[in-house]
Amino acid sequence: MTYCIGMRLNRGLIFMSDTRTNAGMDNISVFRKLVSWGKRGERSLTLLSAGNLATTQSTISLLDERSKAANERVPGLLEVPSMFQAARLVGGVLRDVIQAHAESGQKADSAFNATLILGGQIKGMPPRLFLIYPEGNFIEASLDTPFFQIGETKYGRPILVRAYDPDMSFEAALKLFMVSFDSTMKANLSVGLPLDYQVYDVDSLTTGQIHRVSVEDETFQAISQGWGEALRGALSSLPEPKLPT
Amino acid sequence: MTYCIGMRLNRGLIFMSDTRTNAGMDNISVFRKLVSWGKRGERSLTLLSAGNLATTQSTISLLDERSKAANERVPGLLEVPSMFQAARLVGGVLRDVIQAHAESGQKADSAFNATLILGGQIKGMPPRLFLIYPEGNFIEASLDTPFFQIGETKYGRPILVRAYDPDMSFEAALKLFMVSFDSTMKANLSVGLPLDYQVYDVDSLTTGQIHRVSVEDETFQAISQGWGEALRGALSSLPEPKLPT
Repeated sequence: MTYCIGMRLNRGLIFMSDTRTNAGMDNISVFRKLVSWGKRGERSLTLLSAGNLATTQSTISLLDERSKAANERVPGLLEVPSMFQAARLVGGVLRDVIQAHAESGQKADSAFNATLILGGQIKGMPPRLFLIYPEGNFIEASLDTPFFQIGETKYGRPILVRAYDPDMSFEAALKLFMVSFDSTMKANLSVGLPLDYQVYDVDSLTTGQIHRVSVEDETFQAISQGWGEALRGALSSLPEPKLPT
Repeated sequence: MTYCIGMRLNRGLIFMSDTRTNAGMDNISVFRKLVSWGKRGERSLTLLSAGNLATTQSTISLLDERSKAANERVPGLLEVPSMFQAARLVGGVLRDVIQAHAESGQKADSAFNATLILGGQIKGMPPRLFLIYPEGNFIEASLDTPFFQIGETKYGRPILVRAYDPDMSFEAALKLFMVSFDSTMKANLSVGLPLDYQVYDVDSLTTGQIHRVSVEDETFQAISQGWGEALRGALSSLPEPKLPT
């Protein structure tokens, strides 16, 4: 399993993913699930992936290769004229990779499926955020649905729904993400530290660094430990129901 | 879908279930999923059910019939000498009902499976709480795992894990349940109001009334509306991570 969030804020985009992959319970590894592409002053794109690791790695390799070879026939992520076209390109590659294995006659215990979140901005247009399905089609985040989750989405969803505010700072969003990931990691062993995150300032057109929250991260530890108490405080601030007698 | 919680506290047991059943998105109904049996001064048992409605209703009917007919060959829930035997009886009936349909040659879109929570007390023994699987086997709640959830368990789990306290009052537990159900209903349309709940005071050996939280319940409304703000307050009380520069 995996857990990733991509979110649209008024000041830009923020992405976070865990790094645990597992085949069964006893075969776990750390892999990066957050990758980005950019051309300074022109575009920045970030991709989050959940699902079959062979599928997502193959998809990213194909996208990478295309973005490196200038004389490719199909335009790469650094050449497409719009975010919509970028999502279409990524969705097409993802669908092709999944189909190639599905049709090879080989059977795996689990499906070769994967789901992606793609966000970014191209000069002259606003930032956009997409959720891309294994079939290659996609939906876009809107004011009503300003964030996407992929992987183990349920445990960490209620806090996102309740606390999201389009005007929030990146620091506040990062804290919100940490709480959402902490709830998920406490409930599902297949989601684990370290966490990767990236922040994109609107109109910066610069691909920010990918940062990592490690097991030793003191802020994360403080948030993880403080959240239980903060929740109990929040609960006790609510009116107490009376038991009928 | 469904959502039910059964919880062990130092002062007794508390149970809650939603009442929505659905076959697809456009065929929803209200059914009671919380039933209880008792003999004043001698025993009290409560059953929560999630899964195929035909299976759970059939299981309850069979258990009911048995508890009514004094000359049944298999002892009913009002006659078994221990809670362990009660769980075995319920598990056996559940397994038989599921198997009868699975072997009938008929095929349904969804499985005939169901999962149950059984809690209660028999005179001279402490209260006990069981989670009963479709296969008829079961596990018992302990100090380490003092509550069970069935149905759509994920959205409402983090708050239970964080806020559970064995010494809490029934009122506090009821509030906690309302928050857990509210988070679940906000995320999954197939879990819905009204909610049924029952409280069992340790050593009372009296089957309490089943109470209902309706759409008009003012305390529930206040909790549902106040929880978002309380959560945001809890979040802002935590230390803010610094973005690396």
